[in-house]
Amino acid sequence: MKILVINCGSSSLKYQLINMENEQCLALGLVERIAAKGSILTQKVNGEKYIIEETMKNHTDAIKLVLAALVDRKHGVIKELNEIDAVGHRVVHGGEKYAKSVIINDGVMIGLDECTKLAPLHNPANIMGINACKKLMPNTQMVAVFDTAFHQTIPEVAYMYPLPYYLYTDYGIRKYGFHGTSHKYISVRAAKMMGRDIKDLKLITCHLGNGASVSAVKDGKSVETSMGFTPLEGLAMGTRCGSIDPAILIYIMKELNLTIDEANDLMNKESGFLGVSGVSSDFRDVESAAMNDGNKRAQLAIDIFCYGVKKFIGAYAAVMEGVDAIIFTAGLGENSPRTRARICKGLEFLGAVLDKTKNNAVGICAELSTDDSKIKILVIPTNEELVIARDTNALIK
Amino acid sequence: MKILVINCGSSSLKYQLINMENEQCLALGLVERIAAKGSILTQKVNGEKYIIEETMKNHTDAIKLVLAALVDRKHGVIKELNEIDAVGHRVVHGGEKYAKSVIINDGVMIGLDECTKLAPLHNPANIMGINACKKLMPNTQMVAVFDTAFHQTIPEVAYMYPLPYYLYTDYGIRKYGFHGTSHKYISVRAAKMMGRDIKDLKLITCHLGNGASVSAVKDGKSVETSMGFTPLEGLAMGTRCGSIDPAILIYIMKELNLTIDEANDLMNKESGFLGVSGVSSDFRDVESAAMNDGNKRAQLAIDIFCYGVKKFIGAYAAVMEGVDAIIFTAGLGENSPRTRARICKGLEFLGAVLDKTKNNAVGICAELSTDDSKIKILVIPTNEELVIARDTNALIK
Repeated sequence: MKILVINCGSSSLKYQLINMENEQCLALGLVERIAAKGSILTQKVNGEKYIIEETMKNHTDAIKLVLAALVDRKHGVIKELNEIDAVGHRVVHGGEKYAKSVIINDGVMIGLDECTKLAPLHNPANIMGINACKKLMPNTQMVAVFDTAFHQTIPEVAYMYPLPYYLYTDYGIRKYGFHGTSHKYISVRAAKMMGRDIKDLKLITCHLGNGASVSAVKDGKSVETSMGFTPLEGLAMGTRCGSIDPAILIYIMKELNLTIDEANDLMNKESGFLGVSGVSSDFRDVESAAMNDGNKRAQLAIDIFCYGVKKFIGAYAAVMEGVDAIIFTAGLGENSPRTRARICKGLEFLGAVLDKTKNNAVGICAELSTDDSKIKILVIPTNEELVIARDTNALIK
Repeated sequence: MKILVINCGSSSLKYQLINMENEQCLALGLVERIAAKGSILTQKVNGEKYIIEETMKNHTDAIKLVLAALVDRKHGVIKELNEIDAVGHRVVHGGEKYAKSVIINDGVMIGLDECTKLAPLHNPANIMGINACKKLMPNTQMVAVFDTAFHQTIPEVAYMYPLPYYLYTDYGIRKYGFHGTSHKYISVRAAKMMGRDIKDLKLITCHLGNGASVSAVKDGKSVETSMGFTPLEGLAMGTRCGSIDPAILIYIMKELNLTIDEANDLMNKESGFLGVSGVSSDFRDVESAAMNDGNKRAQLAIDIFCYGVKKFIGAYAAVMEGVDAIIFTAGLGENSPRTRARICKGLEFLGAVLDKTKNNAVGICAELSTDDSKIKILVIPTNEELVIARDTNALIK
């Protein structure tokens, strides 16, 4: 059983072909600059790169090239397209309609379209990817896996905003949460590492990448998460401000004479690490400026980020009335022992004690807490593609 | 030594005359509908009411009546105005300029005026009150006591928003925090009740009234608080939404075609208890609807509020890396055992155990935790006027 996983953006596309017998990735690739000058596909098989530079007018052209690369005699990994048993598509927003992954049919296509209002930047690209695949592989089953689905178990008290009630009933304004496949993956994996039944565990999962969110996962279910109606809420991120006093928006629109779109851009594209440090939206650049150049604003940006994660850990321990493990994943979570140490400093009062040596682990699954730490601290590289492939596999069987 | 405390709003005014020898309140009063039809002054002395209904064109007229009521032969408490040794004025916003109370002089008046930009609804009324007093009592010393001052010890990592840095340097956008006199008062009082030096304590102070905020007070200093640039941030309140995904504002302005002012009103005047319950902004009405009428939205509003406080308690324990006591104050905090119980439920993992019987205390200073609770839970009726009087007294000496 081989499953193709597609994660489609507006001008880029990531894919993996996964062999479900051993959950190994056979090939992974990235297509960039779709419908723009200089479009390019890069595929990796066993670390070897295969690059195609060719004009791609649209997502159908891109998927065509992906399929060609997969069956390429020299660089491909399968002989014929019918070896692909199913395609799993990442879809950002499933609204309240999709609490689980679904096999895509005409009804689902209408459903996805309805969710577009909630994710106008993301869902249209996801839908383009699905349509392109349906066109080129009309007899292959397709599954939609949602970023929001895992969080549909969050209780009303946590997903409702204290706004006029009609904003929920008439406009769907509530907390949805994102990074669901990642939070799900590392929760399941953490339970395995701990040799415990996930149904007895209280986990705090920290997905810390360019986008970042923290979740509280109790008995295997998401009960709280830091992203909200949109992926802006919660932590400071590369260019996003996260949660701020919402009255600030009123103030700056008036004082700086900003339009709604300009205010939105300020919060989504000019804030976070970039806004505070003035250096870059990339954590590595910011950390380098702080460490090597003694840049104080760069250090402040890092401190604000770590402080935010720490506050969520405390808050979510209160939400679950205890915590058994704290798990780090994604770019920063997997690769920055320094950041993890800064976040965990002082959490000893909760019973979480980081082991300085173990914390040097980078890019692997590892336990980072001391042997006698009451609360485990773990690092688990995330694998959203594998969750998508697993869900797809389970549904088409 | 007698000190008059003035808390001046745009159309109302609260006052107390306090005898500093024993910190007793000699008289307290409320003036309503200043510069409107039906203006009225109500003064209470030893529980007895004295009411004056008289036209008040402006704040000077109002202060004139206050002074007349205080020296009234039958209903007053002093013989002559020169028995008032000083006046302490509550001022909402002191910006970054005022980290402490100050004796009011011409320079301070300019400073207060500069802070008006940050609190356009509140500071102008405070300034009107000061000017009226200066006119009527030109030889009496006046002190300004700021709602924001106690929070000026909050560290940079907590007061800086992850927004473009120039919004701080050029526009003063940062966390200021409010209810400072209340958080300060109950911190000091809690240390006394515990028989401990405040400099060794980690306290979480919950000011839960129609406006509500939670603070982390470490070694006697505010290190974090839930209100921010404005009093909108943080908890859901009577009509305020508190913290929400700031992108919601963008969404509703577009979808509902709201102006900036309408969006601001929606968040400040139509949300919170009122918006969720649809019943009232007054917690008592909402609780009655939930308890007596089984109104589910009323119950949800209460649940959201309590859940929010609980999350802040967890977060602030993490901020201070531990906590010695949790203190409740203000309308709800002092008078609703049910709310306190709901907030504290499940905090046993932190070492905070509420005693169900002790928790019935209402309107008095009391310990509410069990004898063996590692973390104390206290209720302390707040007394912002006394803090203002104490600060005033200390400065004029």
